Amino acid sequence: MTVEDRVRVSFQRQTVMQTLGMILVEVKEGECIIGFDYAEKLTQQHGFIHAGVIATALDSACGYAAYSMMPEGAAVLSIEFKTNLMRPAKGERFEARARVVKPGRTVHFTEASLFALTDDSEKLVATMTGTLMVVTGREGIQG
Amino acid sequence: MTVEDRVRVSFQRQTVMQTLGMILVEVKEGECIIGFDYAEKLTQQHGFIHAGVIATALDSACGYAAYSMMPEGAAVLSIEFKTNLMRPAKGERFEARARVVKPGRTVHFTEASLFALTDDSEKLVATMTGTLMVVTGREGIQG
Amino acid sequence: MTVEDRVRVSFQRQTVMQTLGMILVEVKEGECIIGFDYAEKLTQQHGFIHAGVIATALDSACGYAAYSMMPEGAAVLSIEFKTNLMRPAKGERFEARARVVKPGRTVHFTEASLFALTDDSEKLVATMTGTLMVVTGREGIQG
Amino acid sequence: MTVEDRVRVSFQRQTVMQTLGMILVEVKEGECIIGFDYAEKLTQQHGFIHAGVIATALDSACGYAAYSMMPEGAAVLSIEFKTNLMRPAKGERFEARARVVKPGRTVHFTEASLFALTDDSEKLVATMTGTLMVVTGREGIQG
Repeated sequence: MTVEDRVRVSFQRQTVMQTLGMILVEVKEGECIIGFDYAEKLTQQHGFIHAGVIATALDSACGYAAYSMMPEGAAVLSIEFKTNLMRPAKGERFEARARVVKPGRTVHFTEASLFALTDDSEKLVATMTGTLMVVTGREGIQG
Repeated sequence: MTVEDRVRVSFQRQTVMQTLGMILVEVKEGECIIGFDYAEKLTQQHGFIHAGVIATALDSACGYAAYSMMPEGAAVLSIEFKTNLMRPAKGERFEARARVVKPGRTVHFTEASLFALTDDSEKLVATMTGTLMVVTGREGIQG
Repeated sequence: MTVEDRVRVSFQRQTVMQTLGMILVEVKEGECIIGFDYAEKLTQQHGFIHAGVIATALDSACGYAAYSMMPEGAAVLSIEFKTNLMRPAKGERFEARARVVKPGRTVHFTEASLFALTDDSEKLVATMTGTLMVVTGREGIQG
Repeated sequence: MTVEDRVRVSFQRQTVMQTLGMILVEVKEGECIIGFDYAEKLTQQHGFIHAGVIATALDSACGYAAYSMMPEGAAVLSIEFKTNLMRPAKGERFEARARVVKPGRTVHFTEASLFALTDDSEKLVATMTGTLMVVTGREGIQG
């Protein structure tokens, strides 16, 4: 399986992605983009996208950016992430764009940004830095 | 309105809480608990609750713990949070328990923990530290 | 060597501790306290202790709390930490108190708080959550 | 006073910068670079620069990047920062390079990277994301 195929198979098993209407826009070695549309079901009390939904997109994007650099048979688990929320998440469409800043044998360091997109502009809404662990040989944990 | 009433009104406007099956378990001054049951629609690729869903519960709990200490008419916005993921989130029921560590005029510092609960035990799954801003007089931002 | 002895040997090799006037107050399994006195050489522009100095004490305390739970021969390296600065660091004496929240085979999750102490009170100044890696068999990295 | 002059005046009052041998390499609106040489007095137990020293350089660089965008008379205080430590900090010379990602009326969001420099290369050692508060009219807090 190519890296992209492995990521797509794992992504389809992330049921929460469907729940939130998130799709895998692009994946290549060390990079991943996840997109979603504005929907009322994703909002907090002011009608903006909830910060936790933002974190969900960013974390999955970081996870798959990292996973795309891991050896076959390995699985990926988030150890920690930090999110900065710079602007209220209003817009029609959003993209979480992640990349691996420093891969490693045991942990991968990643960075990601969430943008609100319109037809002719994009605005930075939030950023994440996250650490992902390479997990091998743990029963029931694949992908 | 009592503090609890104000929080309940705002919580009901957080549409994503219904989407994810999250309920307001308890709120008092400077503290908030949000609970949810395991559901397949919340999971990542290994069948655990997705880290972003965990962050959603923790962030809302932190937000309402902070909001419960703010003056009437103020609104609450998350500036940043950091989440540590200590154990895979498996279990039947989960609670995010948050408290304000240091309230302030402009920002509130909060801490929260997510526990996996069974009838006779609880396990720490994740923690969050988060900073929330007190927002006043910004149009369209209430609660 | 006892755990405490191992920590003390390593602490003495942390030259920056002497540079900043920091001492190992206490260490036991999974816990560590580092103390230091106010000194002008540690300050930022307003005369408070610099946030980086605070982070230095907190990170070493987290590191040794983690190290105290590692097998002999292992070394400890910080992967990441996050610090919340709740109050200006004014006072005469400070203590960074750390504990391991969740030990692991590869990574340890820790928490720490920095207090400003007077004879009869203590005030929370800052907190840290940090992740430490267990390093074994890497040349030149011990303790 | 120009922005650069204001930053230089404040930097000189950060006594800890002298203690650690750190200098202000460059400052312009929204950006700041702080440099320092390897010295044994800055090291942890393996002979690398201590993570807290790294955080000190990064935090000051973030702080002055933010301060350079604040109105005259305002002061800057760190609310929180998170540091990822990607490689052991070995090298002869280091630079912490910070920029404001999103300025605001009350808080500024910043990002910074620490590089280990040799004559013909640079290596990313660590990153920071930090939030700085704009403080006005608080007695004894200037610069």
